[in-house]
Amino acid sequence: MSTEFSSSSAFRAILNDLPQADETARAGAEDRNGQLTKPPGALGRLEDLALWYAAWRGDARPVLEAPSILIFAGNHGVAAQGVSAFPAEVTAQMVGNFAAGGAAINQLAKAQGASLNVHALDLDTPTEDFTQAPAMAEDAFVAALKAGWDAVDPASDLVIVGEMGIANTTAAAAVAAGLYGGGGAAWAGRGTGLDDAGVAHKAAVIDAGLARHAEALGDPLDVLRCLGGRELAAMAGTITRARVEGVPVILDGFICTAAASTLEAASPGALDHCVAGHLSEEGAHAALLERIGKEPILSLGLRLGEGSGAAVALSILQSAVACHSGMATFAEAAVSAGQG
Amino acid sequence: MSTEFSSSSAFRAILNDLPQADETARAGAEDRNGQLTKPPGALGRLEDLALWYAAWRGDARPVLEAPSILIFAGNHGVAAQGVSAFPAEVTAQMVGNFAAGGAAINQLAKAQGASLNVHALDLDTPTEDFTQAPAMAEDAFVAALKAGWDAVDPASDLVIVGEMGIANTTAAAAVAAGLYGGGGAAWAGRGTGLDDAGVAHKAAVIDAGLARHAEALGDPLDVLRCLGGRELAAMAGTITRARVEGVPVILDGFICTAAASTLEAASPGALDHCVAGHLSEEGAHAALLERIGKEPILSLGLRLGEGSGAAVALSILQSAVACHSGMATFAEAAVSAGQG
Repeated sequence: MSTEFSSSSAFRAILNDLPQADETARAGAEDRNGQLTKPPGALGRLEDLALWYAAWRGDARPVLEAPSILIFAGNHGVAAQGVSAFPAEVTAQMVGNFAAGGAAINQLAKAQGASLNVHALDLDTPTEDFTQAPAMAEDAFVAALKAGWDAVDPASDLVIVGEMGIANTTAAAAVAAGLYGGGGAAWAGRGTGLDDAGVAHKAAVIDAGLARHAEALGDPLDVLRCLGGRELAAMAGTITRARVEGVPVILDGFICTAAASTLEAASPGALDHCVAGHLSEEGAHAALLERIGKEPILSLGLRLGEGSGAAVALSILQSAVACHSGMATFAEAAVSAGQG
Repeated sequence: MSTEFSSSSAFRAILNDLPQADETARAGAEDRNGQLTKPPGALGRLEDLALWYAAWRGDARPVLEAPSILIFAGNHGVAAQGVSAFPAEVTAQMVGNFAAGGAAINQLAKAQGASLNVHALDLDTPTEDFTQAPAMAEDAFVAALKAGWDAVDPASDLVIVGEMGIANTTAAAAVAAGLYGGGGAAWAGRGTGLDDAGVAHKAAVIDAGLARHAEALGDPLDVLRCLGGRELAAMAGTITRARVEGVPVILDGFICTAAASTLEAASPGALDHCVAGHLSEEGAHAALLERIGKEPILSLGLRLGEGSGAAVALSILQSAVACHSGMATFAEAAVSAGQG
């Protein structure tokens, strides 16, 4: 299998030949799960998560010791349309805050024992305003996919993808509308704090983008290129590379899920190595998760991005793997099994 | 304030004179929260949890460094009525499993960096069968309350209470029915794995207990004494001592919540220093949480007990406190605030 690409068509070829989960490891994990000192099913979703993780790590009794958080930041030409409550310079300022250790994701990475790497993607050169032109030309798109691809450390055993980018809920909503229809109104939300008029304006801007790129809408990766942004493309690259390397992924919120959805639309099953970390407060996230068939682990009303919801969910996966791989069996503990 | 008691009436006096949260600390935490480098409210429930924790720790920028998990195990005379899928000897076997480090709670304590102490309460002397007599006489009841009270380390900064006890979903359902009415059918669930006939039998056993102790039903602590069990009384003692010491509490599942509910019923507001860690799969837990006005942090389908759901939820509280106390303010990070 190719693990490099220099064109979007080569990336498409990788997407159409993805490795699958290890069914032997899954069966071994299921067998082990049935012997652990608890009533069958009593750990609920933790059991499902442990089995999923075992299957994708190819290990019936896996460890989770080297989680990695990858954040991509990008700027958006469409920000000029006034679709965010924050000015565009906040993207670079927040990258500075990440570097200084002051953002939410820094605290969450530390709390969960995860590495954190932030990739600022050509912040001084925003993507094109998608109401006027494709957000990215082919070369910029491939560069962004590769930035995400190259960011993955194959030695990590779990990847979280997140983003920062003023106006990127607009890009994400445009991508969702491009993939699934419904127009801007179905997918535009409050982002970092728009009022009703702001949301209506955002929906109109998205509709203008959909009209401008009507010819792209049948092709998920072209939707990502024309309506997305560098950090969205990078997240798609990361998620794909993680699959190739056998590294499970926790998806973050609305923007991350929109980027991921392009992969699922392009190659059904492409997100089987991913779980949804949380349900974002951003209005259309639930609908997007439904489209890709993912049930979020958490529902805590977060809407920050930065990988924050996925990083909180990482602690749940760590708990799941710790129980699965650390617990004694009935036989080991000499505990009587039930009649249930 | 008394911090000792030698009778249930002295315990009642403590319950009626509980310390309250530190509103100055809460206001300071709210002020800080408004300045952190994120859109207002973007961390959703994590923000609420951090403010709650700050108020009960009396510190606008608190730490969470010494969480403590306390598990109480008890045996139940009512187990003789055949209300569990597991034999009664499993209680002691599971205490052995806790001691050996093989249970789910051992893995979760390690994953979350919490201390774990297990208290086996007179396992060789089950409580009375509540269909025949009060589960505990006054002296046994006070001893159990004190076992929980004495187990709290005042130097801990968070307490999780959990339990183990074959047949204790029956005791918990009986307590809930005793507090809130509805009879056995409203509160009896599958426990560790009963079928429909088993649940119906369990409900009938509870109804027999309710009829036997009709005179106790107006008094929440008497409900706990007559229909509960040693581990339920101990959890009530722990929760109350934690309040007196200014230590917030994460409640676990159905049995823990039933024990806690007796305190809220006896002294409204007695659980204000507690959050509900999770929604158990045990059927009546949602109704019980509604009665005490608590929204669970997690809903992952757990139904194990042992403090396991609360221990998973601890990681969420740790994330909340880490963000609140560790993040930079807009001024510190030189990030432009939004217009929202």
